[in-house]
Amino acid sequence: MPRVPARPEPTVAAVGEFALIERLRRLVPATGPDVVRGIGDDTAVVRLSGQVLATCDVQVEGVHFTRDLCTPADIGWRALAVNLSDIAAMGGAPRYALISLLLPPEMPVSTLDGVYAGLAEIASAYDVIVVGGNVSRTSGPFAIDVALLGETRRVLGRAGARPGDGVWVTGSVGKAAAGLFLLRHPEVHVPHAGDLMAAYRRPVPRIEVGQALAGMEAVSAMIDTSDGTASDLLHLADASGVGARLDLDRLPLAAGIASAARAAGRDATAWALGGGEDYELLFTAAAAFETSTADLGRTLGVSVTRIGDILRPEDGRWIAGRGGSRVPLVPTGWDHFRDTEGQGGP
Amino acid sequence: MPRVPARPEPTVAAVGEFALIERLRRLVPATGPDVVRGIGDDTAVVRLSGQVLATCDVQVEGVHFTRDLCTPADIGWRALAVNLSDIAAMGGAPRYALISLLLPPEMPVSTLDGVYAGLAEIASAYDVIVVGGNVSRTSGPFAIDVALLGETRRVLGRAGARPGDGVWVTGSVGKAAAGLFLLRHPEVHVPHAGDLMAAYRRPVPRIEVGQALAGMEAVSAMIDTSDGTASDLLHLADASGVGARLDLDRLPLAAGIASAARAAGRDATAWALGGGEDYELLFTAAAAFETSTADLGRTLGVSVTRIGDILRPEDGRWIAGRGGSRVPLVPTGWDHFRDTEGQGGP
Repeated sequence: MPRVPARPEPTVAAVGEFALIERLRRLVPATGPDVVRGIGDDTAVVRLSGQVLATCDVQVEGVHFTRDLCTPADIGWRALAVNLSDIAAMGGAPRYALISLLLPPEMPVSTLDGVYAGLAEIASAYDVIVVGGNVSRTSGPFAIDVALLGETRRVLGRAGARPGDGVWVTGSVGKAAAGLFLLRHPEVHVPHAGDLMAAYRRPVPRIEVGQALAGMEAVSAMIDTSDGTASDLLHLADASGVGARLDLDRLPLAAGIASAARAAGRDATAWALGGGEDYELLFTAAAAFETSTADLGRTLGVSVTRIGDILRPEDGRWIAGRGGSRVPLVPTGWDHFRDTEGQGGP
Repeated sequence: MPRVPARPEPTVAAVGEFALIERLRRLVPATGPDVVRGIGDDTAVVRLSGQVLATCDVQVEGVHFTRDLCTPADIGWRALAVNLSDIAAMGGAPRYALISLLLPPEMPVSTLDGVYAGLAEIASAYDVIVVGGNVSRTSGPFAIDVALLGETRRVLGRAGARPGDGVWVTGSVGKAAAGLFLLRHPEVHVPHAGDLMAAYRRPVPRIEVGQALAGMEAVSAMIDTSDGTASDLLHLADASGVGARLDLDRLPLAAGIASAARAAGRDATAWALGGGEDYELLFTAAAAFETSTADLGRTLGVSVTRIGDILRPEDGRWIAGRGGSRVPLVPTGWDHFRDTEGQGGP
């Protein structure tokens, strides 16, 4: 029998700009009670009230993800997740997204469909409506830039930490870095590998927890751990004008990280300090907060761990290590230009 | 005397992500009475009221601009102008912008400073505050993606045109295409060349006119001429579910276009129909509007020209050409993937 030649997959160039927009519009319908105009006009029109949160973050192929480690749906999930995490870090409720796509002409439309499947999944999970966007050709890598709008009553930002406050973090840290290592080394088998890889590919933004924390008077400042625990604590300390001590032995490591680090020949605390991309919430709180931790665990199923203390500016910023050692707290996270993955820590 | 070697210009990679953000923050200060939090937190926090307009549009080097035809400041101007034009097309008032930059590591920081100078100039001219953004490295071309928020009372979109309405356009059309030709052919000298080239490099969004038109009950639908007069009239007719006739001889051509077209060996009406990037407002209005045109000219200094009529759906969409000829109205504008510059028209 003659072989049927494989039909080439249609590319985004073959589909063309306007048909592509129509296709994407069907994958994420822009409808909701407060959407006055969705996709298809010169701008979207939405109703928002009170203080509006606005943020944007881009995912670029080869910089933030690679297609051998992430499925198209993972890419779509991450593109919105990193923005959701920024809304979470302000204690806000996400509402509307704009999606800007830079597409290599030869990109298969099926890949874009996959990206939008992941995007639609996380948008639906967090009640986000995609109300607009644009597509453009590029001679460079595929990129997806998301602008996200939200609402909040209290503005809980990076400034506000006071000496004497505790430094806390939700969940566990270093898991995305461990997951990335495991994705790059499929020959390594460790317990909980699936959870660690999922932490990298499908980060879960802490929207509910962020809102709960913003509702507590004792909580004084907040940031998400996108750059790495050390870098992000420094960002918060800079904005608040305070010193800080990070207790190395208190860093909550997810199950499996120690085994993965041994297999990688690295120190798990280096991932925990500098890995970044965990999208947990790092926050500061006065002593009264201690009594709320059990409640948070029971109602939202999330653990919070005290990992240090806010100090007076003159007391500096440092890490309390093993056996009473003391090392400076320095940025060890991700810089998009220097491309140095966090290898910090003592 | 020994020659002093040229000092290499610092690149964005040498400056690094966080120093770059701090540098850009100084170039466009995010302050204003309704800015609760500007650049430096996980998200911006702004106060907006009523119906919020949200749009985004990207400019990619090699697709939307080239550095031999545009200065860095032109690129910054255009990046915001195209978004302002979308707000204008909805009759809105622009308020806040988020800027997402994709930067090749070897890009000189001085180029980025220039881009931001142009961006700051147009932002200041239209009371837009840059409240946030992000920077990322890319292995591809330089790109600047802008998300713009605005406010409006009346929502005047593409849908709403009724049979019997006139089709109108502000200013003149085809000038950006003529300007682009002249920029590419510096050996061609025609009168008004400077104005035509400026129309391409520094498009002027019709914010005030858009708001004035949205305040008039007779005006029924609106769009900006970003894709080209023919394409944009079709978009409007599609959204409104109507037919349309475009009167070729009524198209308002800017001074100098005819001479430039002769030098180019083209038909000026092809530029006017398909050129795109003019960022004029194309709108439809009931007969009562005729009496307002003199007022618009006097108070806002803008001319408006009736270029056709809205028809019943069954009467089709066509161009009334010279000597009673009749040709179908088809898209002749810009498709970002097909890369066909408008050459349409009879």
